[in-house]
Amino acid sequence: DFSQALEEIKPAYGASEEEIQEVIQNGIIEFDSEIHEILEKGKLFVNQVAKSERTPRVSVLLNGLPGSGKTVFAATIAWQSQFPFVKIISPDRMVGFSEAQKISAITKTFNDSYKSPLSVIVVDSLERLLDWTYLGSRFSNAVLQTLLVLIARKPPKGRRLLVLATSSLGQHIVDLGFSEVFDASIKVPPVSHLGQLEVVLRSVELFASESELRETLRQLSSAGFPRNASEAETPTLPLLVGIKKLLSIIEMARQEPESAGQRLMNALF
Amino acid sequence: DFSQALEEIKPAYGASEEEIQEVIQNGIIEFDSEIHEILEKGKLFVNQVAKSERTPRVSVLLNGLPGSGKTVFAATIAWQSQFPFVKIISPDRMVGFSEAQKISAITKTFNDSYKSPLSVIVVDSLERLLDWTYLGSRFSNAVLQTLLVLIARKPPKGRRLLVLATSSLGQHIVDLGFSEVFDASIKVPPVSHLGQLEVVLRSVELFASESELRETLRQLSSAGFPRNASEAETPTLPLLVGIKKLLSIIEMARQEPESAGQRLMNALF
Amino acid sequence: DFSQALEEIKPAYGASEEEIQEVIQNGIIEFDSEIHEILEKGKLFVNQVAKSERTPRVSVLLNGLPGSGKTVFAATIAWQSQFPFVKIISPDRMVGFSEAQKISAITKTFNDSYKSPLSVIVVDSLERLLDWTYLGSRFSNAVLQTLLVLIARKPPKGRRLLVLATSSLGQHIVDLGFSEVFDASIKVPPVSHLGQLEVVLRSVELFASESELRETLRQLSSAGFPRNASEAETPTLPLLVGIKKLLSIIEMARQEPESAGQRLMNALF
Amino acid sequence: DFSQALEEIKPAYGASEEEIQEVIQNGIIEFDSEIHEILEKGKLFVNQVAKSERTPRVSVLLNGLPGSGKTVFAATIAWQSQFPFVKIISPDRMVGFSEAQKISAITKTFNDSYKSPLSVIVVDSLERLLDWTYLGSRFSNAVLQTLLVLIARKPPKGRRLLVLATSSLGQHIVDLGFSEVFDASIKVPPVSHLGQLEVVLRSVELFASESELRETLRQLSSAGFPRNASEAETPTLPLLVGIKKLLSIIEMARQEPESAGQRLMNALF
Amino acid sequence: DFSQALEEIKPAYGASEEEIQEVIQNGIIEFDSEIHEILEKGKLFVNQVAKSERTPRVSVLLNGLPGSGKTVFAATIAWQSQFPFVKIISPDRMVGFSEAQKISAITKTFNDSYKSPLSVIVVDSLERLLDWTYLGSRFSNAVLQTLLVLIARKPPKGRRLLVLATSSLGQHIVDLGFSEVFDASIKVPPVSHLGQLEVVLRSVELFASESELRETLRQLSSAGFPRNASEAETPTLPLLVGIKKLLSIIEMARQEPESAGQRLMNALF
Amino acid sequence: DFSQALEEIKPAYGASEEEIQEVIQNGIIEFDSEIHEILEKGKLFVNQVAKSERTPRVSVLLNGLPGSGKTVFAATIAWQSQFPFVKIISPDRMVGFSEAQKISAITKTFNDSYKSPLSVIVVDSLERLLDWTYLGSRFSNAVLQTLLVLIARKPPKGRRLLVLATSSLGQHIVDLGFSEVFDASIKVPPVSHLGQLEVVLRSVELFASESELRETLRQLSSAGFPRNASEAETPTLPLLVGIKKLLSIIEMARQEPESAGQRLMNALF
Ligand SMILES: Nc1ncnc2c1ncn2[C@@H]1O[C@H](COP(=O)(O)OP(=O)(O)OP(=O)(O)O)[C@@H](O)[C@H]1O
Ligand SMILES: Nc1ncnc2c1ncn2[C@@H]1O[C@H](COP(=O)(O)OP(=O)(O)OP(=O)(O)O)[C@@H](O)[C@H]1O
Ligand SMILES: Nc1ncnc2c1ncn2[C@@H]1O[C@H](COP(=O)(O)OP(=O)(O)OP(=O)(O)O)[C@@H](O)[C@H]1O
Ligand SMILES: Nc1ncnc2c1ncn2[C@@H]1O[C@H](COP(=O)(O)OP(=O)(O)OP(=O)(O)O)[C@@H](O)[C@H]1O
Ligand SMILES: Nc1ncnc2c1ncn2[C@@H]1O[C@H](COP(=O)(O)OP(=O)(O)OP(=O)(O)O)[C@@H](O)[C@H]1O
Ligand SMILES: Nc1ncnc2c1ncn2[C@@H]1O[C@H](COP(=O)(O)OP(=O)(O)OP(=O)(O)O)[C@@H](O)[C@H]1O
Ligand SMILES: [Mg+2]
Ligand SMILES: [Mg+2]
Ligand SMILES: [Mg+2]
Ligand SMILES: [Mg+2]
Ligand SMILES: [Mg+2]
Ligand SMILES: [Mg+2]
Repeated sequence: DFSQALEEIKPAYGASEEEIQEVIQNGIIEFDSEIHEILEKGKLFVNQVAKSERTPRVSVLLNGLPGSGKTVFAATIAWQSQFPFVKIISPDRMVGFSEAQKISAITKTFNDSYKSPLSVIVVDSLERLLDWTYLGSRFSNAVLQTLLVLIARKPPKGRRLLVLATSSLGQHIVDLGFSEVFDASIKVPPVSHLGQLEVVLRSVELFASESELRETLRQLSSAGFPRNASEAETPTLPLLVGIKKLLSIIEMARQEPESAGQRLMNALF
Repeated sequence: DFSQALEEIKPAYGASEEEIQEVIQNGIIEFDSEIHEILEKGKLFVNQVAKSERTPRVSVLLNGLPGSGKTVFAATIAWQSQFPFVKIISPDRMVGFSEAQKISAITKTFNDSYKSPLSVIVVDSLERLLDWTYLGSRFSNAVLQTLLVLIARKPPKGRRLLVLATSSLGQHIVDLGFSEVFDASIKVPPVSHLGQLEVVLRSVELFASESELRETLRQLSSAGFPRNASEAETPTLPLLVGIKKLLSIIEMARQEPESAGQRLMNALF
Repeated sequence: DFSQALEEIKPAYGASEEEIQEVIQNGIIEFDSEIHEILEKGKLFVNQVAKSERTPRVSVLLNGLPGSGKTVFAATIAWQSQFPFVKIISPDRMVGFSEAQKISAITKTFNDSYKSPLSVIVVDSLERLLDWTYLGSRFSNAVLQTLLVLIARKPPKGRRLLVLATSSLGQHIVDLGFSEVFDASIKVPPVSHLGQLEVVLRSVELFASESELRETLRQLSSAGFPRNASEAETPTLPLLVGIKKLLSIIEMARQEPESAGQRLMNALF
Repeated sequence: DFSQALEEIKPAYGASEEEIQEVIQNGIIEFDSEIHEILEKGKLFVNQVAKSERTPRVSVLLNGLPGSGKTVFAATIAWQSQFPFVKIISPDRMVGFSEAQKISAITKTFNDSYKSPLSVIVVDSLERLLDWTYLGSRFSNAVLQTLLVLIARKPPKGRRLLVLATSSLGQHIVDLGFSEVFDASIKVPPVSHLGQLEVVLRSVELFASESELRETLRQLSSAGFPRNASEAETPTLPLLVGIKKLLSIIEMARQEPESAGQRLMNALF
Repeated sequence: DFSQALEEIKPAYGASEEEIQEVIQNGIIEFDSEIHEILEKGKLFVNQVAKSERTPRVSVLLNGLPGSGKTVFAATIAWQSQFPFVKIISPDRMVGFSEAQKISAITKTFNDSYKSPLSVIVVDSLERLLDWTYLGSRFSNAVLQTLLVLIARKPPKGRRLLVLATSSLGQHIVDLGFSEVFDASIKVPPVSHLGQLEVVLRSVELFASESELRETLRQLSSAGFPRNASEAETPTLPLLVGIKKLLSIIEMARQEPESAGQRLMNALF
Repeated sequence: DFSQALEEIKPAYGASEEEIQEVIQNGIIEFDSEIHEILEKGKLFVNQVAKSERTPRVSVLLNGLPGSGKTVFAATIAWQSQFPFVKIISPDRMVGFSEAQKISAITKTFNDSYKSPLSVIVVDSLERLLDWTYLGSRFSNAVLQTLLVLIARKPPKGRRLLVLATSSLGQHIVDLGFSEVFDASIKVPPVSHLGQLEVVLRSVELFASESELRETLRQLSSAGFPRNASEAETPTLPLLVGIKKLLSIIEMARQEPESAGQRLMNALF
């Protein structure tokens, strides 16, 4: 049966469990119902790959601002798939690689996946894999071409593959030709109103007392930040902060408990 | 006789049957009479190569939007030719190749074809073979020059060659100098009205009931999508979707049978 | 005497007769008196090289639209010179060469020619030798510089050399600096009126009956194509087709004898 | 305990004490209260790294005009951290390195730091590490990508890292994509009014007599230089000089004690 | 004495007499008094190098249209110097050289010259040595820098060097930085009026009879070509042809004696 | 004592006396009091390096028009310093070097200097060291970065270094980032009025008689050239000639003693 096949395959080419777990260890704070929906969509794509006869390969792009949580979503969906082959292609593990070495590492991961009946590959941070820089729109065309072909390529007969890529390239995704190779794309949202912020603040317990929390939110509200989703559409003062950045700001504020609220607000302006 | 020659030649340099069959295995849905005409035109070119004394080399370009079915048409025409030498030059098989390796692989295929009295070469996806990217109009000039010379080059005495190339480069084909090397070009159309869509939907049996199908088409129609070819010329809301993308959308919709119609419609807007 | 010298030289560095004959085998259809004049001009240059003391090197550029017959003219003039050394430098024989290999092959041909008292070198398709592409005006500067020097360089004492180059680069010839290195240039014309077309059609016997030919010409005429040279100067609908393309169109039309006229006309619009 | 761990680790991969001490040996003149605040902020980040569970990696950018003292601040904060691993990545020690050698040296420093429980890395002078030049906005993209990944990369489990980078790139920091990888940024101010200048002049004892000092300041004041912070906001004649440049000017002036005031003033205009 | 020194030196590093003689063998037609003056100026520079204590190195640029005779003038001045070391640095002898090989050959010639007490180096055709092309203003910066340094460099103590460079780069000479390294520049004029043309035609004896010559000149005059230097300043129809091109045209015309005048005129328009 | 230390050090890494003497052998004509001041300023910087504790490294830029005497000033200041280590980094000694070889030679000179307690390095002609060309603002970024770091780098403890660089790059010095690395800059002036010219002419004794000199100056004056410094500020006809060019012009004029005045004037217009 399936789980047995899984057992046998793993030793052969190893689902890099540790790597994935490291990425997802800090968990996901559900500061909005959208967060849940992203994971649900992920499950649908996992099912499609596992079941549909006609689409043995499905590729999905997760895009959003820097630090909005793209990597953690991709890794979580991959992990929850329970597919026997799950790998992350990450720039973190390619520091100092030459263009040729990068291409070879990327290609190897795809080729390895073809040995498993069911695979997920997370292609993390297209911008860094491509050596992208806005100044002069420079990037590695060789890596780009490799990714364009590999993401679009059908796996061999009997093999199924889900590709989850992350990117903060925005519209450049189209200019670079990526839009043709993805079957679907999921938008990862930033924290954009005080209702969401409150969920996060409670979750990480920045403030010692409820009153401090209340007071901070009140001040942010009177400064003009949107209080809820509908206000966020036409904000006096927009709040657009990636969850990763927000968590980092909170940790800095935590260093000075007496003035945490003040520090937090300074950083948000 | 001919078939005997075929037998003898095959072992020597192998018509890559598997490769071709893999490409054409999903078949062609005849959602329009144009589909049939493309295959007929293909046969004419096959005949011309086989018979005309003056044109031992004929080259044809299949162009169309991404996912419109260019590769499957080229492969089908090649397969139906029953020529002893049939090969696909595909970026899928050149991942990670250096420029020099690509050129050498392409050149080898043409040189191999010169050993057979009758050959078809499918040059698939000029844009990927060239490492083309719209951003900065970058491409490999060395591969371009190789293709320009090889596609235009007459095979040696007594040898005949049909070249079928595919591309979604649109007008860039002219800028790149390809227009001079092709004897003819065939336009591969996207699905552009609901009549065609209906043929496809019936063919893949997305809906469990006729009423669901009807309802979905009715809603799409009232949304403004053209109902037939003549409406498609001046559409309220244009429908322009490659068959490959359409089939992918359908498979996603199939994952949630209860709301398949809705999913399909969301994806088409 | 001369012919004896010729005999002796040939074995040493071989006039590549086969190569030349292959190019000229399809012959030249004299669809206009200009065609004859080109060959006559060629003979004058051959004589000048053979006789003038002051110009041991003459270089001539044949330019014209793609497929207008430049290569066949250059090869024919070269062949008719009956010089002991006749060689074609052709991109067809340099596929996959690196820049350095191209330069070395080109240089070798010129150096070899210096061993013969009388030589013709056909430098075919400057645009392909240079890896020229209109998109971004890219080209190999190293090959360009090599050609500029070699075409302008005087052969050693007692040696005489005619260089015949072909190009469809139009005005770019000047930008690239070629205009300074050629002593003269010959324009190769396309088929530009129905009178010329008729000569070609009769010559290749596309139509089974005289009436079919007449009818086709009549229709083309009433569509607005110029009937003769004077009409071609201010045409309602210009006819500008290289003879090579025209012959290819004719062969395609020939595949459907019943509708050959129609096919021909479609292709000409 | 902690200090013992420190002892043990040092021999293994050496905190380069000498290197750091060399940088900080000339000390910091507290010409403004801001100077003190910078060092205090530095301590907060050091604490955050040492204590916060959620932010095992904190990265801070020190930016300011050339010669404003960025390097000395970064080195001082690093030194005062008393972390067992403290290293400076400096262009001074990479003269003549190839791009690959630079990348390898940078990467090695980060990898070495992962062996220590607590580390500080000073990434000094991003502009020189990147081979940045304003003329044509040239820079090494390979070094840029390496820094972007390494500065953002989380250290392995149980390791903590503070990255202190310095730069005078101003807004180009954003174009180059650095703004995403820093958790915070500190502005290093130039000397901008005569009150600050006076502190510096007294500290380095340029003038032999109080009257000379007074007279020089008086002249500078009447020339229009701002006398204090509030005047510096809308100065008649702005004073904007890095402390490094200022100290160099003072040393030149010192060579001619009789006209030191005059020399100083000439250099400040 | 001097001539003895000359004898001894020659065998050591060879004045390449043959090479020079080959260049100057066709002689100089004195079609204008300017021609004589160029050679006289040349002698002055030769004397300056030989005698002035303060200028052991003099560098002169000969510039003019392509084919105006720059090379023959430089070679003639060099030859007439009777200096023991006379060499031509010519692109003709560097075909197929890599950039590094070119630089090494150029450098070697200069270093060799330093072994002779008196030397002339002809640096022929700066544009070709630099791989210059107008399209995109491409050139070899490495060769340029080498020439800029070598032409400006003082020879070692006791050595004297005259550098004669030729170029048709016009104003680009300034852009490329050459204007700073030449002590003087000489303009080589084209044939610009019929008086000069007549001298040339008589000298090469194109026409069999005086009347033919007269008739041709009369026709050219009535076509509007300037008859003398003063008319050439504001010509109806300018005549601007390099002597090299003119001599080539004459040889072509000579092939058809009966219509030589006509051919000549066609070519001049 | 100091002079003994000097004796001991020299053999070890040699102050290249010959090299320097060669550069300064032709002497400096004091055609203006400014000339003297430049040398005095030089001495101040030498003293600063030798004495100030706080500035063990001082870097000075000498900039001016081509041929204004920058190199001779830098070499003279270096020579007069009597420091044990004096070296010139000159493009003249790097002809044909690759980028890497240049960088290595430059770096070696700096590293060698660190072995001497007191050193001067003349970095001659930044533009040629950088392979600078105005056309397209091309230059070697690798050499630039090396110079930026080395000129700014503090020598090791106990070592002192004066860097004297020369350049005619004008404002490009700023664009290239050099302005940040120099502590001071000295402007080297051209000959700009007839008073200065007269000093030069007398010094080199171009004219045989006082009357000839007077007459020439009178003519230049009436032509509109400025007679003195104040006229030079708003000249009718500006005189702006580097002393090097002027001396070269004078030597040419000297070749024709009878018309020396005329020749001189022609060259100055
Ligand atoms: N709702 C959430 N969504 C995403 N991440 C969350 C959420 N709540 C908490 N987190 C935490 O926020 C961090 C998001 O970081 P992550 O690296 O996934 O962002 P990213 O968008 O990939 O950033 P980058 O643009 O730098 O690649 C993770 O540490 C994750 O555990
Ligand atoms: N009428 C049709 N025409 C073409 N393809 C069809 C048709 N009906 C079904 N198909 C299927 O649609 C898919 C078309 O994909 P194909 O790769 O040929 O498109 P493509 O234009 O080459 O795409 P790409 O631009 O990505 O190269 C194939 O799987 C094919 O079996
Ligand atoms: N009058 C003619 N002139 C030239 N070619 C003719 C003529 N009549 C028939 N032909 C045939 O037409 C073809 C011309 O092809 P050729 O390769 O010489 O053209 P081309 O201009 O060199 O093309 P390209 O631009 O592709 O290099 C040859 O096969 C030749 O035999
Ligand atoms: N208040 C101060 N802040 C900074 N540096 C000071 C201060 N007072 C004195 N200094 C001295 O000024 C010098 C500042 O030099 P530093 O190299 O740190 O500047 P920098 O901004 O890094 O320069 P660069 O832009 O060239 O890298 C040091 O020698 C330092 O000892
Ligand atoms: N008055 C003249 N001046 C120069 N050349 C003359 C003159 N009369 C005859 N000639 C001949 O004209 C030819 C000039 O050619 P030369 O190669 O010197 O020209 P060029 O300007 O160097 O050409 P290019 O621009 O191609 O380098 C030589 O063959 C020379 O013998
Ligand atoms: N007052 C003067 N100043 C400078 N040089 C003088 C002066 N008087 C005479 N000379 C002589 O003028 C020449 C100046 O040449 P130098 O090479 O120093 O100029 P440069 O500015 O370095 O030129 P380049 O821009 O070519 O590098 C030297 O030969 C020097 O001996
Ligand atoms: Mg991420
Ligand atoms: Mg395809
Ligand atoms: Mg051709
Ligand atoms: Mg610094
Ligand atoms: Mg020449
Ligand atoms: Mg100099």
